[in-house]
Amino acid sequence: MAEVVVLGIDPGTRCTGYGVVREVSGQATLVAAGAIRPPSKAAMAVRLGEIFQGIALVIQKYGPHEVAMEEVFTHKNVSSALKLGQARGAAMAACAVHGLEVQGYNPMAVKKSIVGTGRADKHQVAYMVAQVLGSKARQECESWPADVTDALAMAVCHLNSRRLAKLVGAVDGMP
Amino acid sequence: MAEVVVLGIDPGTRCTGYGVVREVSGQATLVAAGAIRPPSKAAMAVRLGEIFQGIALVIQKYGPHEVAMEEVFTHKNVSSALKLGQARGAAMAACAVHGLEVQGYNPMAVKKSIVGTGRADKHQVAYMVAQVLGSKARQECESWPADVTDALAMAVCHLNSRRLAKLVGAVDGMP
Repeated sequence: MAEVVVLGIDPGTRCTGYGVVREVSGQATLVAAGAIRPPSKAAMAVRLGEIFQGIALVIQKYGPHEVAMEEVFTHKNVSSALKLGQARGAAMAACAVHGLEVQGYNPMAVKKSIVGTGRADKHQVAYMVAQVLGSKARQECESWPADVTDALAMAVCHLNSRRLAKLVGAVDGMP
Repeated sequence: MAEVVVLGIDPGTRCTGYGVVREVSGQATLVAAGAIRPPSKAAMAVRLGEIFQGIALVIQKYGPHEVAMEEVFTHKNVSSALKLGQARGAAMAACAVHGLEVQGYNPMAVKKSIVGTGRADKHQVAYMVAQVLGSKARQECESWPADVTDALAMAVCHLNSRRLAKLVGAVDGMP
């Protein structure tokens, strides 16, 4: 019974959401979800250190095989892009030092993969993610902040595209 | 005899320059300088992991007390700001997990502190940095790439402002 554990991350200097999802025989379930919130008055380096160590702890505790993270190409302005880049850098470094590759996903594509439209709002995404991830997720989904929902959506989208890639591979391999 | 070891860092996803400078009784000398160049074809997370681990190794080897890094507020475009932010995030996380604060410096202010003008070119900065850091630096400075020169300039600028802060403190404390 092939098992795969996926870590989804939505990085940010104020709040970095994460979600761990396990899939066995095509059935995905929620393992853990939470957010790393460094002290808002701490120096930037301290906050980035907390993001690095928070993600490292999640990796050590749940042993994900693969990581999915929002891929950002545009942003409202240069200053906020620099800050977001820093949070992403700390989180990605934590994955890399644990030997994990990071797969990037376009936020619009993630929404489309889960809700069926790239313009879905946070509540629609949370609802669909919870439906996919079983009873624990359905109980908890009301309490998820947006960053946690986005992180879990990333993990679910990664499982969807993994499954699709396998199907395409199976069709390609047919006589 | 008060000793202080300062690590200067000029982060970038292609090349991250670093320089370690030691000051004893107002005399600064070069300890080590080099560059971390992750494989250019490697995935971004792998490159960021190498930056993190490279800076961590430098910290473990030379035990700096303080870190100086270029502070960037503007950049040519959002996409390159995101990339630069990622490299900074990986380097700053490495400092933070080793308990080191990171002091940011404006690149113009660094040049002004070292050469006397914010418009100095790379060669002028390298020449002045080498003059300050003793014979080993004067022998090596021809071989420094720009990122190494900038990292060392950051460390020298940090020592300058440290010395100035002490002098101001001494004057403030006078009767």
